[in-house]
Amino acid sequence: MNNLKINAAGRPVPPEVNGEPVVPYMGVGKYKPVASKCSPVIPSCADFPADGNKCVASLKEALVKAGLRDGMTISTHHHLRDGDLVANNVFDIAHELGIKGLRWFPSASFPCHDHLIPYLEDGTIAGIEGSMNGPLGKFTSAGKMERTAVLRSHGGRVQAIQDGEVKIDIAVMAAPCADPFGNANGLGGPSATGVLSYADIDVRYADKVIVVTDNLVPFPCLPMQIEGNFVDAVVLVGKIGFPEKIMGGTTQVTRSPDRLIIAELTARFCEATGIVHDGCIIQAGAGGISLAIATFLHQTAQKNGWKIQAGFGGTTRYMVDMLKDGTMKYILDAQVFDMEAIRSLNENPGHTAFTLNNIYNYHSKGNFATMIDMVSLGATEIDVHFNGNVVTHSDGILLHGIGGWQNCLFAKNTIIAVPLFRDRIPVIVDEVTTLCGPGELIDVVVTERGIAINPLRTDLIAKAADTGLPLKSILELKEMAEAICGKPEKPRFTDKVVGVVKWVDGTVLDVIRQVEGIW
Amino acid sequence: MNNLKINAAGRPVPPEVNGEPVVPYMGVGKYKPVASKCSPVIPSCADFPADGNKCVASLKEALVKAGLRDGMTISTHHHLRDGDLVANNVFDIAHELGIKGLRWFPSASFPCHDHLIPYLEDGTIAGIEGSMNGPLGKFTSAGKMERTAVLRSHGGRVQAIQDGEVKIDIAVMAAPCADPFGNANGLGGPSATGVLSYADIDVRYADKVIVVTDNLVPFPCLPMQIEGNFVDAVVLVGKIGFPEKIMGGTTQVTRSPDRLIIAELTARFCEATGIVHDGCIIQAGAGGISLAIATFLHQTAQKNGWKIQAGFGGTTRYMVDMLKDGTMKYILDAQVFDMEAIRSLNENPGHTAFTLNNIYNYHSKGNFATMIDMVSLGATEIDVHFNGNVVTHSDGILLHGIGGWQNCLFAKNTIIAVPLFRDRIPVIVDEVTTLCGPGELIDVVVTERGIAINPLRTDLIAKAADTGLPLKSILELKEMAEAICGKPEKPRFTDKVVGVVKWVDGTVLDVIRQVEGIW
Repeated sequence: MNNLKINAAGRPVPPEVNGEPVVPYMGVGKYKPVASKCSPVIPSCADFPADGNKCVASLKEALVKAGLRDGMTISTHHHLRDGDLVANNVFDIAHELGIKGLRWFPSASFPCHDHLIPYLEDGTIAGIEGSMNGPLGKFTSAGKMERTAVLRSHGGRVQAIQDGEVKIDIAVMAAPCADPFGNANGLGGPSATGVLSYADIDVRYADKVIVVTDNLVPFPCLPMQIEGNFVDAVVLVGKIGFPEKIMGGTTQVTRSPDRLIIAELTARFCEATGIVHDGCIIQAGAGGISLAIATFLHQTAQKNGWKIQAGFGGTTRYMVDMLKDGTMKYILDAQVFDMEAIRSLNENPGHTAFTLNNIYNYHSKGNFATMIDMVSLGATEIDVHFNGNVVTHSDGILLHGIGGWQNCLFAKNTIIAVPLFRDRIPVIVDEVTTLCGPGELIDVVVTERGIAINPLRTDLIAKAADTGLPLKSILELKEMAEAICGKPEKPRFTDKVVGVVKWVDGTVLDVIRQVEGIW
Repeated sequence: MNNLKINAAGRPVPPEVNGEPVVPYMGVGKYKPVASKCSPVIPSCADFPADGNKCVASLKEALVKAGLRDGMTISTHHHLRDGDLVANNVFDIAHELGIKGLRWFPSASFPCHDHLIPYLEDGTIAGIEGSMNGPLGKFTSAGKMERTAVLRSHGGRVQAIQDGEVKIDIAVMAAPCADPFGNANGLGGPSATGVLSYADIDVRYADKVIVVTDNLVPFPCLPMQIEGNFVDAVVLVGKIGFPEKIMGGTTQVTRSPDRLIIAELTARFCEATGIVHDGCIIQAGAGGISLAIATFLHQTAQKNGWKIQAGFGGTTRYMVDMLKDGTMKYILDAQVFDMEAIRSLNENPGHTAFTLNNIYNYHSKGNFATMIDMVSLGATEIDVHFNGNVVTHSDGILLHGIGGWQNCLFAKNTIIAVPLFRDRIPVIVDEVTTLCGPGELIDVVVTERGIAINPLRTDLIAKAADTGLPLKSILELKEMAEAICGKPEKPRFTDKVVGVVKWVDGTVLDVIRQVEGIW
């Protein structure tokens, strides 16, 4: 591609992606769409069974009835995480039917979806827009995916659907609990996921919606996290997921001494600067460091007699503990990471599900993310301008999705809590390999060897001045990393753009290029 | 109007209403829209305060900021019923600002809205689309409203908004409980309404949304019956309604001996024909006869050891009693008629709010109304073809809204429970003055002097044959009414069409003409 143009972040980006024109990133809050929302086709009750029973015999039958054909866009959600059987089954069926050129539009992908690589190779799937983790990422980086990959944040995915940027032909929504009309939730059954928050936007805007469940209950399935009025067909299958893999993953507090130092420094910083305070709103994620930070903040709040007004989930038992002992008043939940969180959702009226639209969609009338006092996030790289990368590593290979990371940057105080280096590769670098978040939105970087505050945040610099915390400049942190690890070799890229990173407003923030010499 | 055309119900209807082309009624389930849903303008978080505080000082300021100007469409909901102060206040302000030609689009109107008649007279309000009760109806029938009135069912209103038939410029949503971001519900505060189900569609599709509350709570206001992401501004006022009038109205069981006979006959008919049975779904409304029917059905279910699977509200304490003693498993609620129902919503997880879209929108992928085993409804007139009228009386004057009446006709068994005559005016007539519901959807008419089953329902006729119930033909009922009351004089109409009645699919079912010699 020789027609790349430099965007407002200084990154060269293409004028179109997969044949569709795109807007280059213009700066935070600078791009204002002048357009209308996606307008799905108007259905009629006359075309649906009066007894409310939309059950069809198999997913194959449902897909055929939904008009599955070459080139369609198929969406799935990721609440079943690494235990998902449904997304894989969709493409098994598509392959069996000889369908080609599909676009897979998941809300996230997991190692279990490596199952789809043969379908990417044989043309059943032409491309993925979403997260390309592990082998799917490597497949992309090797330049083997037919379409250009499009990476979006969780909120960016909502924005893209709402704005009609991605028109979903068929949404296949796995549901741990559903009735024959299509009302569904994640609360019950053998494959419980707690919530179905990521599915809400899909069912509202997709042309056809298929609910797949292994736990069909009589009408009415309550609460209706998915409303059956948006559902075309319901399929009962033997199993939608492996429970032990749905709730598995990174839900243990880190035991690494270095990472515990990072977590403790983060909590101390938040207390000393007043970022965390009585009545504050926080977001805690999963992952070892985040959970350790949550544990430390729990202690901080208890010590000071503070009540945290609300915590946004991804929820684990560490947040639930705060709710139980009154340290936290409310948990608002878009994703559940363990069984304790599901129990809490079922039992505690202060713990409630909400949709991705509310917290993360930048093209709505405000969202909850900006009201968060403190969020702690990870990154694969942070550069000396505080820019962040979460999708590629310093070897240039695509390995992660963006998740809610970009959306959370809009919190009042965004802290990146990362080790100075991983496997002797520096995390603090001169320039991020892939730009996922502009430095102006990243306020603090906490490492085990020091804390760097973004110079834009003079208020935080003043508040942290006499706290005894190990304050460093971001340059000092980078130099410390290089002193220990040496300067890492730059990855070798070809000219081929294999993926783009979208900003929360749908503009193109950066590109991902083919890496030389893999596969 | 000389260009009226006869529609599928045999009624002459105009090809356009208020300058917009309309489709004549084509028959039940016959009209299939070939169009896309309304697509509101895409907003951006960049235009909303990062701290999530959307409060403005007054409703006037909020309306001015929302760009209030001549000719706009303003929507309100009716959860405050006859205690509503907000809708009236909106037009007081519009009048004060000198705005003209507004279209008021309420989900229903009440006697308190007679306050608006001077604004209809001076041109502040050019027309109403919704229910025109009492004096507003008489004003319309007298031919004094500038625009042609459009009457829609509750579900038809959702359809009209969703389909873009009515574009709402500003939705002013009264909320008994709201936070500064605009999340809101009806559960708490001095003007509690229980639910805000009628407001859901407005906030999703309106250009601008203003939430007006007298009970501002800190974020997060849970549950979010209205999601703040759709809200532009929040206004705190001293009082949104008069509590005693919000929960007042027809919430007492009838004491009239004739009406008690109607209720008892209805319940006996439902039991004898198996319409009501273990696991059935019913809808009970408010109003004296409906409440008496609910009480009798409660006894029937208890006697037989039946569990009613679900009851759809409008909810009163009579339904709540069933939930409490286990006769009913779930209440799904779109409207609340007494404080006992609000208490139940707050306390009983089997009692849950849901939106009008789910139960009544004919332009969705099925709706709940068709799954109801038994609904009992009223009517101002039923004719010998089982056609029903609920908006005008036999004197031709518009006095009522359609409410959910048309939508409920889609139940598996629709029973019209009415006295044979009222104030010596027959209810069973040769031909309804205004056609609101086609006879093919009305299954049974129960009066104090006999029960008529629609000849189309040969199954019910067979089941009822040997039950000892007083079965009559509809013609016999009409003749009995006329024998007692005489044949009523026909109303005298001019040629002027002052209103149209829309069917659930947006087509025009009938017209309402100016009545001669009133006002």
